Amino acid sequence: MRQRLLAAIAMIALLASSVAAYQGNNSRPQNDTKTLAERLGYPKDAKLLIVHADDLGMSHSINTASIKGLESGLVSSASIMIPCPWLPEIAAYARAHPEADLGLHLTLTSEWSLYRWGPVLPKTSVPSLLDQNGYLYHLEDEAAAHMDVKEAEAEIRAQIARARQLGIQPTHLDSHMGTLYQSKALFETLLRVARDNKLPVRVSREWFERASFMPALLGPNDIVLDRTISIEPRVTAADWAGFYADAIKSLQPGVTDMIVHLAFADEEMKGVAFEHPNWGAEWRQRDFEFVTSEAFRKLLKDNNVKLITWREIGKLLQDRAR
Amino acid sequence: MRQRLLAAIAMIALLASSVAAYQGNNSRPQNDTKTLAERLGYPKDAKLLIVHADDLGMSHSINTASIKGLESGLVSSASIMIPCPWLPEIAAYARAHPEADLGLHLTLTSEWSLYRWGPVLPKTSVPSLLDQNGYLYHLEDEAAAHMDVKEAEAEIRAQIARARQLGIQPTHLDSHMGTLYQSKALFETLLRVARDNKLPVRVSREWFERASFMPALLGPNDIVLDRTISIEPRVTAADWAGFYADAIKSLQPGVTDMIVHLAFADEEMKGVAFEHPNWGAEWRQRDFEFVTSEAFRKLLKDNNVKLITWREIGKLLQDRAR
Repeated sequence: MRQRLLAAIAMIALLASSVAAYQGNNSRPQNDTKTLAERLGYPKDAKLLIVHADDLGMSHSINTASIKGLESGLVSSASIMIPCPWLPEIAAYARAHPEADLGLHLTLTSEWSLYRWGPVLPKTSVPSLLDQNGYLYHLEDEAAAHMDVKEAEAEIRAQIARARQLGIQPTHLDSHMGTLYQSKALFETLLRVARDNKLPVRVSREWFERASFMPALLGPNDIVLDRTISIEPRVTAADWAGFYADAIKSLQPGVTDMIVHLAFADEEMKGVAFEHPNWGAEWRQRDFEFVTSEAFRKLLKDNNVKLITWREIGKLLQDRAR
Repeated sequence: MRQRLLAAIAMIALLASSVAAYQGNNSRPQNDTKTLAERLGYPKDAKLLIVHADDLGMSHSINTASIKGLESGLVSSASIMIPCPWLPEIAAYARAHPEADLGLHLTLTSEWSLYRWGPVLPKTSVPSLLDQNGYLYHLEDEAAAHMDVKEAEAEIRAQIARARQLGIQPTHLDSHMGTLYQSKALFETLLRVARDNKLPVRVSREWFERASFMPALLGPNDIVLDRTISIEPRVTAADWAGFYADAIKSLQPGVTDMIVHLAFADEEMKGVAFEHPNWGAEWRQRDFEFVTSEAFRKLLKDNNVKLITWREIGKLLQDRAR
């Protein structure tokens, strides 16, 4: 009895210290005194950057621009939307380029007006994910509000299985439009699926303030990034390169995920993002131009920023699993 | 008993004369002495032409080129693929243009390599329509060989229901890649669904030689076109306009359906039809250029060819139904 009580006290203390570590001190890592950078074998003051292209598989324009980005060497990672119509194109690329750092952009929304997609699972298995036309809901909050969490879990597990069936070996997971970060129950689901698959998932320490449910759900083995960079609608076209330059110049030590959306402002992409300038065709063309520019290459070099991949991070989980 | 025998003999005679009408004499119509042209209110020697764009909904490039074709006045009709990702764009056009002559291009195949789609019904309801990746089969013969006819019927009925739910009021039915003309059982299904919906279906008298099961299945109320024109891979790019010009100059009296495939040879369409020149991006660009040209307009005028629509033909069925 006394032993059980001591064990319970020890467990509570462990959980409390773990939560405190996330909330109180950003320089503290999640499982021991080493930072994520140190665990990856870099000095504590190293500035490590993932340049990550989202939304692969969504359109031909996104696929071709993102592949050019990856092959420029300046985009280090990307993630794929399994339910989308252009999946076969990016799956063929993944099979032909097993070295490419490709994860899954788990997809529970279909956000555009003229071009849409449904789930991987049969529609009758996931009715709570579908709008009245049988597509995934347009918006992340709308999707999260209607979603049966068990159906969401079944669908994202099916997306991972479909990826593997097509010969994609994902290096990481993240969530299209952040749908799986919308509630405690959904985030718990994302973490469970990620752990079961021994895959790291995009989670950033700086999100904890607005998603206060996160720290308590994260365990000592989960990977937590130090921050993300993501351009926002308030940035004008004229300030685009300046926003990214400032972000690189002021980059802090640690691991940062810079999330970009690459495509060409061609007829297809203009049709996909019809009447939607935010994350639209011109937006993605600007992102493409910046991240494949010599100016970006020079900025990284001049500011001692090292590009890393999710595969590198995921090895921490595989090493632990051995 | 005697009355029943006489009735049976009369029925057999009626069926036999109906079959003979199709097989023996191409100038004979299906239900009385009038030709289809005459039933439509035109002189027997009128040269009536439907210029019909296939595959709407398949890609943005096809949608925009086909809409331009319809709005040029030189394309009189088109049909929509309900399972395809760009359906919402063409459905929005159909709602905004209720006068447009839009039918359904019933879809049981997904033919390209890098860009694909599945059925409208839940995958678990139509397993015989799906390849190992959960898409519709690539080819029409492959699809027909695997297909449970009841599942095919359920899927095409679901495509019609989905169209109506989206505000499309189809004027006619036809079959993408001719899948529903591949066997007696499938053609019978197509006819049953068309009759139930009081919609005319693309069937041409000249097909009877290679599809000998057709005449016996067609009833006196079914619409049968006199012929179709469809360009083929043997025609070179240089001969494209010449092929169509010859077809118009030698057009015979009666009702002809000229089937074209319109798109732009843009990046999207080149990606869709990757490594597939037949019915590919350049093919469709050539079709678009010809059918929207002043040369085509002049050919129609100089050869006294009158453009008609499927809506006009479908009225024959509605008049009969009243």
